[in-house]
Amino acid sequence: MTQPPSADLLNHLADLLGPKGFTRDPDDMAPWLTDWRGRYRGQAAAMLSPANRDEVAAVVRLCAAEQVAIVPQGGNSGMVGGATPDATGNQLLLSLRRMNRIRDIDVAAGLAIVEAGVVLEHLHGAALAHGLRFPLTLGGKGSATVGGLVSTNAGGTQVLRFGTMRALVEGVEAVLPDGELLDALAPLKKDNRGYDLRHLFCGAEGTIGVVTAATLRLVPAAAARCTAWIGLASPDDALRLLRRLDAALGRTLEGFELIPDACLQAVLRHIPQTRAPLAASDPWYALVELAGDDGDALTEALESSLAKALEDGLIRDVAIAKSESESEQFWRLRDSISEAERAEGPALQHDVSVPVDRMPQFIAENPARLDAAFPGTRVLSFGHLGDGNVHHHVQPPMGVDGRAWLAAHGEDASRIVYTHVLELGGSISAEHGIGQMKRDMLAELDSPARLAALRAVKDGLDPLGLFNPGKLVAQKAPLA
Amino acid sequence: MTQPPSADLLNHLADLLGPKGFTRDPDDMAPWLTDWRGRYRGQAAAMLSPANRDEVAAVVRLCAAEQVAIVPQGGNSGMVGGATPDATGNQLLLSLRRMNRIRDIDVAAGLAIVEAGVVLEHLHGAALAHGLRFPLTLGGKGSATVGGLVSTNAGGTQVLRFGTMRALVEGVEAVLPDGELLDALAPLKKDNRGYDLRHLFCGAEGTIGVVTAATLRLVPAAAARCTAWIGLASPDDALRLLRRLDAALGRTLEGFELIPDACLQAVLRHIPQTRAPLAASDPWYALVELAGDDGDALTEALESSLAKALEDGLIRDVAIAKSESESEQFWRLRDSISEAERAEGPALQHDVSVPVDRMPQFIAENPARLDAAFPGTRVLSFGHLGDGNVHHHVQPPMGVDGRAWLAAHGEDASRIVYTHVLELGGSISAEHGIGQMKRDMLAELDSPARLAALRAVKDGLDPLGLFNPGKLVAQKAPLA
Repeated sequence: MTQPPSADLLNHLADLLGPKGFTRDPDDMAPWLTDWRGRYRGQAAAMLSPANRDEVAAVVRLCAAEQVAIVPQGGNSGMVGGATPDATGNQLLLSLRRMNRIRDIDVAAGLAIVEAGVVLEHLHGAALAHGLRFPLTLGGKGSATVGGLVSTNAGGTQVLRFGTMRALVEGVEAVLPDGELLDALAPLKKDNRGYDLRHLFCGAEGTIGVVTAATLRLVPAAAARCTAWIGLASPDDALRLLRRLDAALGRTLEGFELIPDACLQAVLRHIPQTRAPLAASDPWYALVELAGDDGDALTEALESSLAKALEDGLIRDVAIAKSESESEQFWRLRDSISEAERAEGPALQHDVSVPVDRMPQFIAENPARLDAAFPGTRVLSFGHLGDGNVHHHVQPPMGVDGRAWLAAHGEDASRIVYTHVLELGGSISAEHGIGQMKRDMLAELDSPARLAALRAVKDGLDPLGLFNPGKLVAQKAPLA
Repeated sequence: MTQPPSADLLNHLADLLGPKGFTRDPDDMAPWLTDWRGRYRGQAAAMLSPANRDEVAAVVRLCAAEQVAIVPQGGNSGMVGGATPDATGNQLLLSLRRMNRIRDIDVAAGLAIVEAGVVLEHLHGAALAHGLRFPLTLGGKGSATVGGLVSTNAGGTQVLRFGTMRALVEGVEAVLPDGELLDALAPLKKDNRGYDLRHLFCGAEGTIGVVTAATLRLVPAAAARCTAWIGLASPDDALRLLRRLDAALGRTLEGFELIPDACLQAVLRHIPQTRAPLAASDPWYALVELAGDDGDALTEALESSLAKALEDGLIRDVAIAKSESESEQFWRLRDSISEAERAEGPALQHDVSVPVDRMPQFIAENPARLDAAFPGTRVLSFGHLGDGNVHHHVQPPMGVDGRAWLAAHGEDASRIVYTHVLELGGSISAEHGIGQMKRDMLAELDSPARLAALRAVKDGLDPLGLFNPGKLVAQKAPLA
């Protein structure tokens, strides 16, 4: 079991980190003790903000000696309460935000060495200043940090071409639970010295140590993009279109988002200065984006593929953005769905994946299962069809008290969603992670073999259970 | 500590597996108790060849109950003794070769579900029959099995474009050390349910369980290729050429092998029916290959890039293969280097990587370090420049007894190579793995933090130390 920190330990930490790196002031700590959605509230004995990896290592060694628990935190914009400490006030919050240096950008090699506290948007800007880009982006880019992005293996809207965070991480630096520094920053294309520790830290949610820096891949900045808003009859047709565009347009295809008409209508109702791209409504839409060097060639290729698709009856209508600002407007419709949904009232949100081919089946069949158990529920599925990942939101039946319904039936409704996902070989967390929000559901529904393997990794690397206890996976038996 | 199997256990296993799946006959076992290079010889209490994953799981459960060690083996074509049991005769050899079924090929999705015992060449053929290819190949393709390729994270000559095995593995099925089956075959593009177990099994060398099947990515079969043999002044120029071709030719660039003239001369001396592609000798050569749908376009693109490189003085000469058979001849020169080297006499071989940019420096500076310690040694570095991976072979000084020199000085000479590699942030095993051959050198030279993390993973997942003991990493303290 972990212990509350002694007064001695707190004094040591305060001395070590100085006033910029140590606080127990409730006002200073308050914003970081609640997750940004306001679902989880915690307490901390202190908030530690080390300035460099040596300070992180020293902090961890001191805490390990007293068996005090550590909760690593980046931008605090996670979706599953993974960076919020528990309510005991015995844990220490370890903020990486002060470690916000871009140590190096190697233009020729297309690599950046970046500290954990660097904010994503800052990295985007720094890359662009060298004619490069870091090809991962998401809604929280103004607050999400590199350490958090690595530790949650973040996704976003460019995964189709560039993969999730792990595909862009060429090296990591981390402090292990015993306070030793693991320097694996060198970007090796081939390295067969045993278990891949880089991939182990991607998505580990701060449970086996803390990432202090990463070597990230950069790609040439794209000079142009071409965006289309496409009307479709069904997710099945959307998948056919995706396969066709993928074959015809290859690596220029960077985005393929699926949007039901109900989502578009909600956006048009609640978000000011939005308008529908097409004259008439269609049941579904795809937002497609190509990127490359030659804007005219992109437009021509996309127009030609979509003209053929119209001719074949695969799509119902299409609008191609005629300007950068029109592209922005299309993306604003997509990016406003969450906000519009909140305005519609509470909903039960699921971030799930299945093999890409099975996604239309899941979208078609899951609402019926929910309706059978809870008549009148409405389902919105939108997002990254090309990644086999949708955000699958269940709205309570019309006319009931939404919050009360969610409190009474939310868990059972979620179980229906997750059970279906697992039947199709899918994942109950595609991109947001497990944190504290999905920990019990994972323990209930995942296979015993998989859970045992996760626990074994946790037990092996963090035998005292010091790192982010209570997140991701319950430890079998923390030693000592 | 592990135990020898009891007579009871052996009887149980014989009953369970039947005569095709169980043997203690020394003649049957002999070919599998020595690695193919003849460096390691072991003994086994029996060789088990289960027919399916359920039999594998049952075997592991029985062995775990008696704490009997298991050594998984595929095609027995590994380079580091990773699949050879120890000399005690107490270990059981677990051959996966009977599990050689391709369970499914999904042409639309470009995926194959393949059992561990499928031979690589067989998979190549099966994919081609569907107009697809599995884009990983290596010298041992006629014997190497999928389970071994996954467990060693195999590389080969197409890594430049398609990555090593882990980039092609979309899912795994494995039996864990307690006999539970982990079914993670579903090909999910996004899955953030904790530590990535798929990547953990890639390169684990059978030390944390045994891979029984994998879901592998297939790509469209390339209709055409274009191969060039290029004369160069130095590895520095080769790297510049690689960067230039990569930018100009993008994803069609599939191979970029670096070959010193001394290797070519050895091949010409020892391998019948070979001839030099260029009229005059150059200090270095690059073997470059493009692949794609349109052979004429490939040739035109390569010719134009190389004409410019000639003009700029970046390359000294070039021969572009004018036929498929000429392409084959160029590759035969590359693929015969090992055989030609053997004919030249014994050499100390190293399979090492450094960040790509540092490879010319390593190739230039390491021979001087060796010569300072061991005057007269000669070094040949050849292989996958684009992956930052060369095979770096040290030949004894002329005139000495090669074998005696290697026995007396080999370890010290290797230490010079590996220490240099690690100074440059590299790996002492780029693609062959650790096995038993490099275990002690890894323990001596790798960072304490990294070694502790490897041991922690091993201890967590295989607390009794049953799986492939003595390979990869020494366990800190096997329980029980």
